[in-house]
Amino acid sequence: MFEFTIDATQGSARAGTLALPHGEVRTPAFMPVGTHGVVRGLSAGDVQRTGAQIILGNTYHLHLRPGEEIVRSMGGLHRFTTWPGPMLTDSGGFQVFSLEGLRRVGEDGVEFQSHVDGTYRTLTPERAMEIQWALGADVAMVFDHVVPGQASHELACEGMERTLRWLDRCQARHAALSGSARPEAAGQTLWPIIQGGTHDDLRRRSLEGTLERGPWTGIAIGGLSVGEPKPVMHRVLETLEPALPPDTPRYLMGVGFPADLLEGIARGVDLFDCVAATRNGRHGTAWLPTGRVNVRGAALKGSTGPLDPECDCETCTTYPRGYLRHLFVVEDMLGLRLVSLHNIRFLVRLGEQARAHILAGTFDSWSREWLRRYHARGT
Amino acid sequence: MFEFTIDATQGSARAGTLALPHGEVRTPAFMPVGTHGVVRGLSAGDVQRTGAQIILGNTYHLHLRPGEEIVRSMGGLHRFTTWPGPMLTDSGGFQVFSLEGLRRVGEDGVEFQSHVDGTYRTLTPERAMEIQWALGADVAMVFDHVVPGQASHELACEGMERTLRWLDRCQARHAALSGSARPEAAGQTLWPIIQGGTHDDLRRRSLEGTLERGPWTGIAIGGLSVGEPKPVMHRVLETLEPALPPDTPRYLMGVGFPADLLEGIARGVDLFDCVAATRNGRHGTAWLPTGRVNVRGAALKGSTGPLDPECDCETCTTYPRGYLRHLFVVEDMLGLRLVSLHNIRFLVRLGEQARAHILAGTFDSWSREWLRRYHARGT
Repeated sequence: MFEFTIDATQGSARAGTLALPHGEVRTPAFMPVGTHGVVRGLSAGDVQRTGAQIILGNTYHLHLRPGEEIVRSMGGLHRFTTWPGPMLTDSGGFQVFSLEGLRRVGEDGVEFQSHVDGTYRTLTPERAMEIQWALGADVAMVFDHVVPGQASHELACEGMERTLRWLDRCQARHAALSGSARPEAAGQTLWPIIQGGTHDDLRRRSLEGTLERGPWTGIAIGGLSVGEPKPVMHRVLETLEPALPPDTPRYLMGVGFPADLLEGIARGVDLFDCVAATRNGRHGTAWLPTGRVNVRGAALKGSTGPLDPECDCETCTTYPRGYLRHLFVVEDMLGLRLVSLHNIRFLVRLGEQARAHILAGTFDSWSREWLRRYHARGT
Repeated sequence: MFEFTIDATQGSARAGTLALPHGEVRTPAFMPVGTHGVVRGLSAGDVQRTGAQIILGNTYHLHLRPGEEIVRSMGGLHRFTTWPGPMLTDSGGFQVFSLEGLRRVGEDGVEFQSHVDGTYRTLTPERAMEIQWALGADVAMVFDHVVPGQASHELACEGMERTLRWLDRCQARHAALSGSARPEAAGQTLWPIIQGGTHDDLRRRSLEGTLERGPWTGIAIGGLSVGEPKPVMHRVLETLEPALPPDTPRYLMGVGFPADLLEGIARGVDLFDCVAATRNGRHGTAWLPTGRVNVRGAALKGSTGPLDPECDCETCTTYPRGYLRHLFVVEDMLGLRLVSLHNIRFLVRLGEQARAHILAGTFDSWSREWLRRYHARGT
């Protein structure tokens, strides 16, 4: 369990297989985000048909509604959501640190005000472990101190060092929960998160400190794609890559626009997640191999062609794009669902294609050509 | 084509088979409403999995968006929506007469103001035929003069007589369209609508006048379930039933709460439609054999049981009802979809059950017991 096998590499790009209690994940892979225990508007069956192998749940949101004890009493997140495959829960760190003005940060943890009912609650490393343990995903994430994207060296250093101290506390609490668990419930691993903002020295210290506390079954890179320029994100990944243990899966948190996937894979990343697929889908923006398209646009009116002629998703193989446009015009929620489905399949398939090209030794040339075509229209 | 075969009767209740260009419809049957060419929030595949055999489209809404010429240019309503089975379009009469203050009625037709863009448009019997011909459903409906539910004898008489005059014009225009059609496109029949409000003598005159203009492949009863007490609707159905041709399918327009189906079937109705299944679904109201339940209710919190233990729909066989409640609490559109799916399946299945009991000669006792249980809680 929690074994990661490298199937092939090309440069820094890797094709691997991650064994988790609820199934295998062939990497590189995009993980759809199920914030409230649901990938917005989609059934578990819908998501399965996109080829997604693993989905995310959000600790912060599920703690507030319906509450982890409800999820636990219903048999855990898998039974609750009916998603049968691997799942990962974030720790809530990113969410509570995003609640500007609604939080108070201390060494013990974060006091925050619920955006749902205004009640005051506290999330600590220990509580984040207990909540995630009750939710019961295959992978739990450490509770990290997240700083703003362009944080100063001083602030980024403070967050990074606190994240390391919290890592100790998460590790201890998770070990205690696992140790006292009934054997059938012990199928959860804990992944640490590398912080340090855009500062290479802090990123290196974060990784060193994390590895000292290992071994780990996976390592996440947090605090990127939060406003910094793309070349900066790429530089941080390049800084970390040589020092990351080669046999451990790497998860780039919150990153997942199409081009980001290929740029991340080229720099050694195995797993990605992002809400953009479903958020764009809800707003009528679809990803195509030639860039983005606005499904509401008049250009699609009356068109009988598929949204993306190269795509094998339910939306593209079933519906004329003129009908998709109509659904957005009349504001029927089926439109949001069908474009979200396409966008998820687009990213899942991009992972599948990247994997096939890594296995075939053609990743570099394929990826370069893919990005050239995608960016050609300037989107 | 358009043949109707009676498979069995019990009292006034009938089990039949209606052959339409896009397939057969075994009756009694509930027809889900696809106002804008979509059953709100549901894909054609979703609706097929409920067992629905025929769906409706709305001429008024499809004329405004996307416009019948767009639908025609895309290959007709079946290709546009991807619904492969039988379809029926209403004539727009009910909608334009509901636009209080936005319409002007004359003998020629109705001038109305689009609720979408405020433009003035005119719907006449001829235009209603042309639009429905362009949409290309299996069954088109005549353009009728609809009066309010509790209309006086004088007003109801005026609407009823105008509906007969408009019937002549619809018949002539539809015959001309059919006669000049390419053979493969001629697969559309026209059904008349009986009006006359709650006045038995007017209902009888409407039926007589309609039959004089026949024969028809189907006859609709309009202007019911618009505010009148249930016993009044039942009386009108009982008044009409002996005079309706036994070998013609009867469609009770806009009627379709669960008890209405059984009461209508007992009075000789074969086909029903209603938006309540999806409207209730969107508001979190589900139909159960024991009455209605509010899916948002605290009683469902944390419950692992199915919404309706007796139901075979995707929602009830897949999802714990505590998860359905959670979806409504966090306002995810998957909740609306899953409860709409259940409600449609509930009505479709009620038709299937009624048919089986008519074939078995047990409809009366089964229906009585079903209604007793459904009403027991006073819902």
